[in-house]
Amino acid sequence: MFEAKLAESALLKKVIDAIKDLITDAPFDCTETALNLQSMDGSHVALVSLRLGVGIFDVYRCDRAVNLGLSLAHMSNALKCAKNDDSCLIRYDDEEGEGLTLTFEDNKGRKQDILVKLMDIDCEHLGVPDQKYSCIIEMPASEFARTVKDLTIYSDTVVINCTKEGIQFKASGEGGTNTVSFSSETNEDEEGDDRVSVDVKEPVKLSFSIKYLNQFAKAANISNRVRLSLAASVPVVVEYQIEEDGFLKFYLAPKIDDEADMEA
Amino acid sequence: MFEAKLAESALLKKVIDAIKDLITDAPFDCTETALNLQSMDGSHVALVSLRLGVGIFDVYRCDRAVNLGLSLAHMSNALKCAKNDDSCLIRYDDEEGEGLTLTFEDNKGRKQDILVKLMDIDCEHLGVPDQKYSCIIEMPASEFARTVKDLTIYSDTVVINCTKEGIQFKASGEGGTNTVSFSSETNEDEEGDDRVSVDVKEPVKLSFSIKYLNQFAKAANISNRVRLSLAASVPVVVEYQIEEDGFLKFYLAPKIDDEADMEA
Amino acid sequence: MFEAKLAESALLKKVIDAIKDLITDAPFDCTETALNLQSMDGSHVALVSLRLGVGIFDVYRCDRAVNLGLSLAHMSNALKCAKNDDSCLIRYDDEEGEGLTLTFEDNKGRKQDILVKLMDIDCEHLGVPDQKYSCIIEMPASEFARTVKDLTIYSDTVVINCTKEGIQFKASGEGGTNTVSFSSETNEDEEGDDRVSVDVKEPVKLSFSIKYLNQFAKAANISNRVRLSLAASVPVVVEYQIEEDGFLKFYLAPKIDDEADMEA
Repeated sequence: MFEAKLAESALLKKVIDAIKDLITDAPFDCTETALNLQSMDGSHVALVSLRLGVGIFDVYRCDRAVNLGLSLAHMSNALKCAKNDDSCLIRYDDEEGEGLTLTFEDNKGRKQDILVKLMDIDCEHLGVPDQKYSCIIEMPASEFARTVKDLTIYSDTVVINCTKEGIQFKASGEGGTNTVSFSSETNEDEEGDDRVSVDVKEPVKLSFSIKYLNQFAKAANISNRVRLSLAASVPVVVEYQIEEDGFLKFYLAPKIDDEADMEA
Repeated sequence: MFEAKLAESALLKKVIDAIKDLITDAPFDCTETALNLQSMDGSHVALVSLRLGVGIFDVYRCDRAVNLGLSLAHMSNALKCAKNDDSCLIRYDDEEGEGLTLTFEDNKGRKQDILVKLMDIDCEHLGVPDQKYSCIIEMPASEFARTVKDLTIYSDTVVINCTKEGIQFKASGEGGTNTVSFSSETNEDEEGDDRVSVDVKEPVKLSFSIKYLNQFAKAANISNRVRLSLAASVPVVVEYQIEEDGFLKFYLAPKIDDEADMEA
Repeated sequence: MFEAKLAESALLKKVIDAIKDLITDAPFDCTETALNLQSMDGSHVALVSLRLGVGIFDVYRCDRAVNLGLSLAHMSNALKCAKNDDSCLIRYDDEEGEGLTLTFEDNKGRKQDILVKLMDIDCEHLGVPDQKYSCIIEMPASEFARTVKDLTIYSDTVVINCTKEGIQFKASGEGGTNTVSFSSETNEDEEGDDRVSVDVKEPVKLSFSIKYLNQFAKAANISNRVRLSLAASVPVVVEYQIEEDGFLKFYLAPKIDDEADMEA
């Protein structure tokens, strides 16, 4: 028996919404300490890694680790039925074995049980090697989302240029060039969630597919802040913290962009 | 001369919006006591019955009963031009005979007259026999709308199961099964508009087309409450009260669903 | 060097949005006293005339008059990136000559530079002769927009009938007839922005293409008020004041409508 209860459905709604356009089906790995999900996107370009730790749940019981293959479209359909403040019980009974049951309840006597059928999925667990990063940027998740969206109109590719002075996102196309800059200096008196902080060991200049960054940026409503970890020739990590005991991380390899290399 | 004036256009806007996707053209039956409309939907599956009694209007004058054939699309177009709090005068002059005139007025000197042309319509009045129902459910109209919408993703058919314990709506399909339950017990301390009340003489279990229930549920903004009247082998009545002197009722025959019968 | 700075990007966003569906490319005429734009629409039916005078800008510097051909789609894309309260610096450097640079800045260290490339455009300046008008109507811009939108459903043509008693907009079509009337009398106690005022030297009755009036009405969020200037056989002027030192004017020739002439 696996059973985990969230006080509010909103969290799971947002998480599934943020990844359902990247991943079609995924293995939900239920262990004693966390509900984990790790999967490459459909085109095998980006990696999604989700952890919802015990601490996030009101109730958590896992008699035996199970790995449940689920369609994210079906999960998303089920979660559309939940109101944000409905409680959400996730349940899988080894013996019934039919599927995962999501139960949403409000405080007015309404109860909704949705059985989401299981699917057969190849579950190769992808090891993500530990990595040292040259630049770590923390910024408001909404600013990151807005910036990436603004650049989409101009090109398929964004050049991210990070120096001690700040971070620059640049896209050039037919209609013109769009450059968004965040100065690390101007920001020094900003406090808390609005601050853009840049921790630079070595400057980096890397190109990425804007389309993927846009997909990642859908997670902006999971957390106020996003962290970008960059280093030459390794995938960027776009990371959203989920409360105290979870995260949603996206990995994307840089484009081998001749122009960016030459300019650098 | 027929003349009837509503203090606010909002009511007629909502009523016409709720039925215009079910019915293309309809006979507006203007009598001394009420403006009535009764019509089968385009596929002759559901019946719509509307009554707007004298008590709903600020002014009401009907020299001679008339039956006016009108396109609901034209009526809806006309009513889109009214602001919710514009007054709405409905007028038909036997002698001019051109059409129905809707006059919307605000309190700032703006006046809008819309002439809606008449149409030739077959006006067979359908008698609805008095019926005893096994279960009568009253619930918030918004909850009914939400429930029916949630089930739409799962199937074309909803099974409604009503017992003394409460009412259950269930739909099963490819992605899984969705069951929404309202307990009559949990609800007992709820008051007023939020309560789900279930009056059961005999339990019933019936299947209906979700598509039609979804159409009916568009009337949710006419009234806070909806009443469902159910009995084996007879059409369900989905009824919205309109102020003190009117109603909008929808009738829909149950599906002859082998599975539901077998389970019952 | 041409440089002009707006305290808030909102104004330029609204202006470009209001005309971008009428005009594809346009000459931005930068002079010592104003940024002007004048252009026929794509079908050479309507004329757009925009003036943003020095007084609208926080900073204004024009060393030498320049005429910059710009795509309104590119300008609109660039301005979509600005938040309403971002400052907006418009800059053109004769020596670089690459294009117009728009710089949006918030007060949190975010800066966005967008280079909009120049285009070759035929710049025939169209003289608009001074004209005496028979009727001048001033009304809330939102009422004009709503009225024109309401009529769109009924016909391609609106008949505007202006007398000392007030102004009437009328459209007739298949579904019926829609007449919107504003009485000049009822309005007398209205104050300020809600008033409809009618200054009639000679009554006029003219027909116009509703499609174009609908396009013009998009400017409703630039100003609370709109002024219509009408005279027989000459284009109507639909004018929105922009702060103290600017305007957006649309000119549209009346339709030669047999029916309207006959009725008159």
